[in-house]
Amino acid sequence: MKSIAILGFGVVGCGVAEVIAMNHERIAKRLGEELVVKKILDIREFPDSPFASLVTNKKEDVFDDPEISIVVETIGGARIAYEYTKMALSAGKTVVTSNKELVSTHGVELVKLARENNCNYLFEASVGGGIPIIRPLHRCLAANKVERIAGIVNGTTNYILTQMAENGSDFDSALKEAQAKGYAEQNPSADIDGIDAQRKIAILSTIALDGAYVDPTKLFTVGITAITTKDMEYAREMNASIKLLAVFENDDEGAFAYVAPHLVSKEHPLACANDVFNAIMVTGNAVGDAMFYGQGAGKMATASAVVGDVMDAAEHETRDAHVAEWFEAGDVLAPIEKHHISVLLRLPADVSEDTVSEAFPEISMQPCVYEAEGEKAFILGKEGDMTEAQLAVGLESFENIISVIRIF
Amino acid sequence: MKSIAILGFGVVGCGVAEVIAMNHERIAKRLGEELVVKKILDIREFPDSPFASLVTNKKEDVFDDPEISIVVETIGGARIAYEYTKMALSAGKTVVTSNKELVSTHGVELVKLARENNCNYLFEASVGGGIPIIRPLHRCLAANKVERIAGIVNGTTNYILTQMAENGSDFDSALKEAQAKGYAEQNPSADIDGIDAQRKIAILSTIALDGAYVDPTKLFTVGITAITTKDMEYAREMNASIKLLAVFENDDEGAFAYVAPHLVSKEHPLACANDVFNAIMVTGNAVGDAMFYGQGAGKMATASAVVGDVMDAAEHETRDAHVAEWFEAGDVLAPIEKHHISVLLRLPADVSEDTVSEAFPEISMQPCVYEAEGEKAFILGKEGDMTEAQLAVGLESFENIISVIRIF
Repeated sequence: MKSIAILGFGVVGCGVAEVIAMNHERIAKRLGEELVVKKILDIREFPDSPFASLVTNKKEDVFDDPEISIVVETIGGARIAYEYTKMALSAGKTVVTSNKELVSTHGVELVKLARENNCNYLFEASVGGGIPIIRPLHRCLAANKVERIAGIVNGTTNYILTQMAENGSDFDSALKEAQAKGYAEQNPSADIDGIDAQRKIAILSTIALDGAYVDPTKLFTVGITAITTKDMEYAREMNASIKLLAVFENDDEGAFAYVAPHLVSKEHPLACANDVFNAIMVTGNAVGDAMFYGQGAGKMATASAVVGDVMDAAEHETRDAHVAEWFEAGDVLAPIEKHHISVLLRLPADVSEDTVSEAFPEISMQPCVYEAEGEKAFILGKEGDMTEAQLAVGLESFENIISVIRIF
Repeated sequence: MKSIAILGFGVVGCGVAEVIAMNHERIAKRLGEELVVKKILDIREFPDSPFASLVTNKKEDVFDDPEISIVVETIGGARIAYEYTKMALSAGKTVVTSNKELVSTHGVELVKLARENNCNYLFEASVGGGIPIIRPLHRCLAANKVERIAGIVNGTTNYILTQMAENGSDFDSALKEAQAKGYAEQNPSADIDGIDAQRKIAILSTIALDGAYVDPTKLFTVGITAITTKDMEYAREMNASIKLLAVFENDDEGAFAYVAPHLVSKEHPLACANDVFNAIMVTGNAVGDAMFYGQGAGKMATASAVVGDVMDAAEHETRDAHVAEWFEAGDVLAPIEKHHISVLLRLPADVSEDTVSEAFPEISMQPCVYEAEGEKAFILGKEGDMTEAQLAVGLESFENIISVIRIF
């Protein structure tokens, strides 16, 4: 019998208990022994839960119990979760988590602590929810230099953008709908400002860089709050969707990581991810493009990934599981100013084409196939001849800019 | 230094040598030691290859060399490859392969032999080419009961069907084009008759059933040779694509596995896989739908998966890697006759609707939104009320059937 504890009985923690209960027999057959949730640590009580008898508010019940060798951390945040994770790893207990904030903030320390204590820190569920991505990237694609990762990694913003595209809702009402459906928090900033996506691409970038730590707080990030119904009209006319992409690129000019809304052609496989679905495309120098698609959040999907990690840990205790060592490596990313991009630029109709040419000298420019009334719209940098720095300088020439959206 | 040998210097074998050469530094950094191709066994000589000096035709150079602990088998087929694989595993050498025929035919014996000799038999590349699928299915989705796998797993047939859909080519000319481009063999039967897809879904089904062996030769299989340009016209009018799907289903009525062309709605993520691309959707009772997309064949993509397995083996020698034990379990699949389906049925215009109703009593029936000239077209079984057996019986009532295509 393998005993585990769950720290934090919120949505995902509860999902973990439910998945283990639902697939109890299958899991036991696979592991050759029963997998049992022995304790659930939470300051709250859950008298109506079928798991009520397991709930404790005494942390000793978990950390001092030598039978509990695997701990699931589904508390969230980087405070108590951080303390408890360190406590568990220090005691030689493997920790499995879906906590992207903690992994992206303290991953280097926690992976190291796990190694030192001959246990594991596993976080398949921290990116892409139920979608297998961490282990495939680290393990199956190990023979590749990862040239690019481009992902729709935040379900909330993808839901909002899908509603805006399909129903013509504006941002505010699409956000309200997402909140009403429980897809967005009452304080939605972490999602709509791209913070959640930032953390996830930082984790994937670190793995793609073989453990060289990428700090999420330093990534160039644009959220979706400025996207309008008119932008959606342009997207439709261009046979594209607007998606919040989290991107890692590693080319001759260095490694870049950033988050921003992009126009993505409807012909591109990433465009098939609508509503709360996630999709992550990885481009390797041997494999070419490989894409991973599925439910990037939600109780049971996220729990699926957590319990998968728990089973891996149970089968292979005391060996290194799926993550290589993470280490501080200074500034592993190149300055975003050097990154090459192309954009759709919307300007008031009274701006002359010459003014635009002067603002963006020697940069490729073409009129957009579509222009809304009272506007001029241009595609800039299509030939890979414009950097973020050049865009920023050029934009300074204009008093009124209707919008700028990057093109994937 | 970790020394490996490659058996069979065809397209994939050559790709393996090239990927290791191309990403030599990265691989060494990751493994903490160099990965070296020491010998390449082939009866042919390759004087112009940069790897010419490694080529040998003496099998002792591989099997009697204790330094070679990992062997890549890229011979193909189930004869010499079978003998050599047994020889290597018996000598305690881990074997990594892309050979779906061998895995699907002799997997039980070979996985067992690997276990007995404290080494591994790894075959990530046998399904989906470069796409991570075997390990994610076995490992990341371990907490799930797999309810369905539906995959476009054969690039050749997907290329042919894409050409027919997009350019209006008929089957014969699309096949000729695929042959001219090197996507199809001169004897294309293994692809167009669905044999290759059969083997791949048998491997995935065995994994989904926790190792209970599924014999590919017993699967209900329909190839794509009967698909016509008129079928493509129907698909277009129905906003669907025709895809050769390899399917595993596990529901209350039992487990089913089969291969057949299906109408797939263009709204479905699987429809984004065109040309030679593959896509495999796995539905688990916790994760919901997760899809894996990428290059299902080709030199470097397949080699990417092979070298990924080699690196896993190098990092974790003598432990069980990603496949559970496979075992003979008798008839693990339910008879396909019991499987519920819906179909598009095309009949000559002179057939009356009453005749169709009589042929399919108590089965839901609706006219297709589109009918080509001189035809009648029906959708049958949309309400889950028709089995393969009922379809077969019903079809006996008609002398002339233009076509029957399953609907996904």
